Amino acid sequence: MITRRGFASDNNAGVHPEILKEIGAANKGHVTGYGADDYTRRATEMFKSHLGEQAEVFFVFTGTASNVLGISAVTRSWNSVITASTAHLEQDECGAPEKFTGGKVLTVDTPDGKLTPGLAEKHMHGFDFEHHSQPKVISITQSTEMGTVYDREEIRDLADYAHSRGLLLHMDGARLANAAVALDQPFRAFTTDSGVDVLSFGGTKNGMMFGEAICFLSPGLSDNFMYIRKQGMQLASKMRFISAQFIAYLRGDLWKRNAQHANDMANIMAVKLAGVKGIRITQEVQSNGIFVIIPPAVAAEVQKHYFFYPWDEKTSEYRLMASWDTEESDIEGFITLLKRELEKYNS
Amino acid sequence: MITRRGFASDNNAGVHPEILKEIGAANKGHVTGYGADDYTRRATEMFKSHLGEQAEVFFVFTGTASNVLGISAVTRSWNSVITASTAHLEQDECGAPEKFTGGKVLTVDTPDGKLTPGLAEKHMHGFDFEHHSQPKVISITQSTEMGTVYDREEIRDLADYAHSRGLLLHMDGARLANAAVALDQPFRAFTTDSGVDVLSFGGTKNGMMFGEAICFLSPGLSDNFMYIRKQGMQLASKMRFISAQFIAYLRGDLWKRNAQHANDMANIMAVKLAGVKGIRITQEVQSNGIFVIIPPAVAAEVQKHYFFYPWDEKTSEYRLMASWDTEESDIEGFITLLKRELEKYNS
Amino acid sequence: MITRRGFASDNNAGVHPEILKEIGAANKGHVTGYGADDYTRRATEMFKSHLGEQAEVFFVFTGTASNVLGISAVTRSWNSVITASTAHLEQDECGAPEKFTGGKVLTVDTPDGKLTPGLAEKHMHGFDFEHHSQPKVISITQSTEMGTVYDREEIRDLADYAHSRGLLLHMDGARLANAAVALDQPFRAFTTDSGVDVLSFGGTKNGMMFGEAICFLSPGLSDNFMYIRKQGMQLASKMRFISAQFIAYLRGDLWKRNAQHANDMANIMAVKLAGVKGIRITQEVQSNGIFVIIPPAVAAEVQKHYFFYPWDEKTSEYRLMASWDTEESDIEGFITLLKRELEKYNS
Amino acid sequence: MITRRGFASDNNAGVHPEILKEIGAANKGHVTGYGADDYTRRATEMFKSHLGEQAEVFFVFTGTASNVLGISAVTRSWNSVITASTAHLEQDECGAPEKFTGGKVLTVDTPDGKLTPGLAEKHMHGFDFEHHSQPKVISITQSTEMGTVYDREEIRDLADYAHSRGLLLHMDGARLANAAVALDQPFRAFTTDSGVDVLSFGGTKNGMMFGEAICFLSPGLSDNFMYIRKQGMQLASKMRFISAQFIAYLRGDLWKRNAQHANDMANIMAVKLAGVKGIRITQEVQSNGIFVIIPPAVAAEVQKHYFFYPWDEKTSEYRLMASWDTEESDIEGFITLLKRELEKYNS
Repeated sequence: MITRRGFASDNNAGVHPEILKEIGAANKGHVTGYGADDYTRRATEMFKSHLGEQAEVFFVFTGTASNVLGISAVTRSWNSVITASTAHLEQDECGAPEKFTGGKVLTVDTPDGKLTPGLAEKHMHGFDFEHHSQPKVISITQSTEMGTVYDREEIRDLADYAHSRGLLLHMDGARLANAAVALDQPFRAFTTDSGVDVLSFGGTKNGMMFGEAICFLSPGLSDNFMYIRKQGMQLASKMRFISAQFIAYLRGDLWKRNAQHANDMANIMAVKLAGVKGIRITQEVQSNGIFVIIPPAVAAEVQKHYFFYPWDEKTSEYRLMASWDTEESDIEGFITLLKRELEKYNS
Repeated sequence: MITRRGFASDNNAGVHPEILKEIGAANKGHVTGYGADDYTRRATEMFKSHLGEQAEVFFVFTGTASNVLGISAVTRSWNSVITASTAHLEQDECGAPEKFTGGKVLTVDTPDGKLTPGLAEKHMHGFDFEHHSQPKVISITQSTEMGTVYDREEIRDLADYAHSRGLLLHMDGARLANAAVALDQPFRAFTTDSGVDVLSFGGTKNGMMFGEAICFLSPGLSDNFMYIRKQGMQLASKMRFISAQFIAYLRGDLWKRNAQHANDMANIMAVKLAGVKGIRITQEVQSNGIFVIIPPAVAAEVQKHYFFYPWDEKTSEYRLMASWDTEESDIEGFITLLKRELEKYNS
Repeated sequence: MITRRGFASDNNAGVHPEILKEIGAANKGHVTGYGADDYTRRATEMFKSHLGEQAEVFFVFTGTASNVLGISAVTRSWNSVITASTAHLEQDECGAPEKFTGGKVLTVDTPDGKLTPGLAEKHMHGFDFEHHSQPKVISITQSTEMGTVYDREEIRDLADYAHSRGLLLHMDGARLANAAVALDQPFRAFTTDSGVDVLSFGGTKNGMMFGEAICFLSPGLSDNFMYIRKQGMQLASKMRFISAQFIAYLRGDLWKRNAQHANDMANIMAVKLAGVKGIRITQEVQSNGIFVIIPPAVAAEVQKHYFFYPWDEKTSEYRLMASWDTEESDIEGFITLLKRELEKYNS
Repeated sequence: MITRRGFASDNNAGVHPEILKEIGAANKGHVTGYGADDYTRRATEMFKSHLGEQAEVFFVFTGTASNVLGISAVTRSWNSVITASTAHLEQDECGAPEKFTGGKVLTVDTPDGKLTPGLAEKHMHGFDFEHHSQPKVISITQSTEMGTVYDREEIRDLADYAHSRGLLLHMDGARLANAAVALDQPFRAFTTDSGVDVLSFGGTKNGMMFGEAICFLSPGLSDNFMYIRKQGMQLASKMRFISAQFIAYLRGDLWKRNAQHANDMANIMAVKLAGVKGIRITQEVQSNGIFVIIPPAVAAEVQKHYFFYPWDEKTSEYRLMASWDTEESDIEGFITLLKRELEKYNS
């Protein structure tokens, strides 16, 4: 089977060999189902070493589930969640947050996918007014859907802002490792230590097969969560095979190697694209995503060889994602082809 | 890591090596996410060859999701689903069906986990009466939670009964392969060809790592299902790794070998248990589950060495599940220990 | 407009003149909406005088809403409610409890519509087991859908039983006044003082135009309830017109006069029916409902003149409800006609 | 009981005497419950005469329920509704739309509470993409929450725009009569005949006690709606008392007299306010609402005598609503007091 390489998404890449090896190693004998096993205990301990002993960690299958169930744990149906209008939570979960929590998602337009207290302020009204959904969570994505990264101070400001109004700070960390590498900081620095209350810790986009972790970083938030996960259809019977993946991911520096590689590849790509005439990079490239305006006719030709998605068809903006397995030759080939098609287009 | 073998559940077993090998084989290069890939296409074709060309197949992660989303596709919130009071749908999904569909689950007590038209009749009233949830689905489990198996005629009778009243027949096939082996019939014979409309086709309990298939066997039922799956948080980004498992499972006879082995082991166990005084098998052993009354003090001692669950603490009934990797030595050891503890107990 | 009198339901009767008069009296000038008005304050005080100072009272429009929202306040979606299989909650709310709470309704068959601890015990399992909906509420109806009445000791036993297992006791009091009259006890005696935690206090079936009260009798249950009511679409803008009705209903003995009359009429009817050959009363007549088996052909003839509903078509059981405006002449006419039709039928 | 008059909301007014009289007239004898009565039949016919024979009409209690259930009838949980960010649906229903439909509400900021195709376009993407909620309804309010009114052409443009993209047009007509009077057009002209598919037809804010009508103006939309209404807890048992109100409201010109009066009073108020220095009217006064910026200290003094609400505390914008029972003396008194307080404030 021949498959076309490309920059469509970091989830088009496969599973890192070390992950697969660990799955094989866990495939021995009988193990109690649903997480009452030693692999899950060990993986959980690794999470605590990264995020703090107070962290309560629950594994689920998908990033959407991670966001939805994490938020469900800290909201009731009369609450609202405030997020950037570009958030995965808003755009790419087909209404799962509303369906499962029964609450509202309120959005703010941002220039770069990043919320600020000033932007969130728009929705800070109607408190204690029974006609109005009660704001309860601010949700940010790290790194963002636009490839940008919040620094610690920005996160701390949002956390303080949220807490001062009785809200919690949720972080969608589907690409958390890419942010850690971009910031050159341990996970804990810009999550637990910066005031994040609930974290979706992603694995799939950075070399795992499947599996995300919902991490409650502030105490007292995970009561009854085991029921939420089960009722949310996200309780894995053979959970050891999620846990084993996280063991491989977190035991050493695999998470960092993979993310560093993806970020590096995006950076190389960005540098090369900066030298290409007739296109325009629209967002600062801080992690593994690049947003670039390309003439649609040119993009269409390049897409015949490299798979990638339009981000905004109205402005002919495209998204290019680098992944843990992107190779420099992919970039070379892409750039060469892009230049050639641009020349044709402009001549 | 030492793990205790036992008969707690067929999901305490690991992954069959052929499944794992196929996952490895699929881990090559870039593949489009979310099911638009060749592995998924091939797996889907295999399902069609087993269930009929009209079958529409969607992969999800868990058995609970398979039941809930399949039923969600064919009901609205004012509908009800009729099932045996022992059904997984009723007892073991933490209310996920109600939460996600908004509808009612109506139950009937059965002697052996098997519904009949006569038993279902209890809930056949209130049609077209706006105060009453409208019956829409009869759901049966094959093989049942009690280890029993419906034969084709029983299924056909239920299907005809359901259809004659405007209802659909849903089958929870978490252990479908065990039933196929027990009946010595192909899947199609007792599903599509017996009038089943929606099928949860299980893989995890018979040697897969994760992954179930929702199969719409009657035409016209799967419109919009892609949204239901996504909103239900069950759309796998790296879906090729579910598909590859099903390819290994269905390409040859792996499904049959695994199920045959589990059923055989249960049968051997049942024969041996029949000769043990002081206990009593409560259900006919037709697939891979055995239900047996054991004095609680005896069970407690045996459980120190072999893991298994109480089914009904009030009657000291226990459930013993054989799996694809159960070994005769497991059974020998268990029986020997059980006899010894019974002797102690009775002396 | 000519309307056919009958025994179909106590809600086929109109509004008692004293209620209507009070509505008119409240129709003066401007009043703040949504319950922040003096009528609502006064009505609430009357409820407190009947149910205890700790009672928290919220008005809604319908009995279904009263049950659903009251239960919603004290459950989460992973909880279950245990009730008689004849309960309005189960049979006549079109799945509103499941839809709105996301939880399960578990039923028990009863001979007379009355739950007991022994009957509820069936569902008391699976505690702290994440796969199983957690039992949280026992719901009883007073007077029941079968016209029977719980005495104080029965309610106290159920409350003690529920509380000992960490559950709450909910009472559907759509016909609470009829029970009070039947027991010859004040409301408080068999609600607050007998351990009821949440009460649906009905008005519509006993002479009001619309309006029910959700009464939280145990402290700490109504936090956030104002949001539940609003999100449940049950917050009346001109709430004074519910409140005024309850003022008229509770200020003096209107509630008692109406209920006494209805019960008396049912009793007269029952005595007369007892003397009619060829029919059979199936339930003890303790409040304002009578259940009677009548040959269907006879019932059909009588229904041409007096409107009433079949209860169970399979057994040709019919329900006859007396209301606050039932007249002895209605009963006379009905009995006369019934006897005549029975004679025809038997000859 | 003394109540403070004011301009807080048109629902602070009471019930028009003709409405109350009709309720009294309907309070005769037994009538079948839940809408199977002659009053409801007659009221429904009046609706058809106003909106077209094809209209399907269902009565509910509240405006929130009217919006939520009407939209629920034409959406599934994976759909989205597009509305102005000022819409009642978005701001004042405590998340009831999300809770009950499971879908998303997407908003657009508008200068005057009025959507246009150009504004709605923002959310017209992601069609047939399973990750994205599918746009299904555009919802507009007539007259708007800002007191402005859509003309027929604007509605027709929105309807054509919606229909061309496979969406439906919903109208929240909580103040529909005020719009009809403002436009000097019959209801039908700017609803059915302008392409509106689903209409919330309000009564409560224009002199009724309670009661709204959900009107399906395009054929085929109301299948199963009886179950939605019941499960939505909005099926009135004594429905004749909603129907009688609508009979009084629609039989003659009561709806028009009430709305004309309210609009006239708002207009008089607006003219007078235009002459007051130190305040600023922010929206064109087209129906019965006035939005005006007043120094907060001044507003606070005036509010001691006339009740009204802040609309936006950040800009010290206040809302003044005229109602069917507003008197010129109310306006005189308000203006006099406002001027006096402004003078004090400015001196």
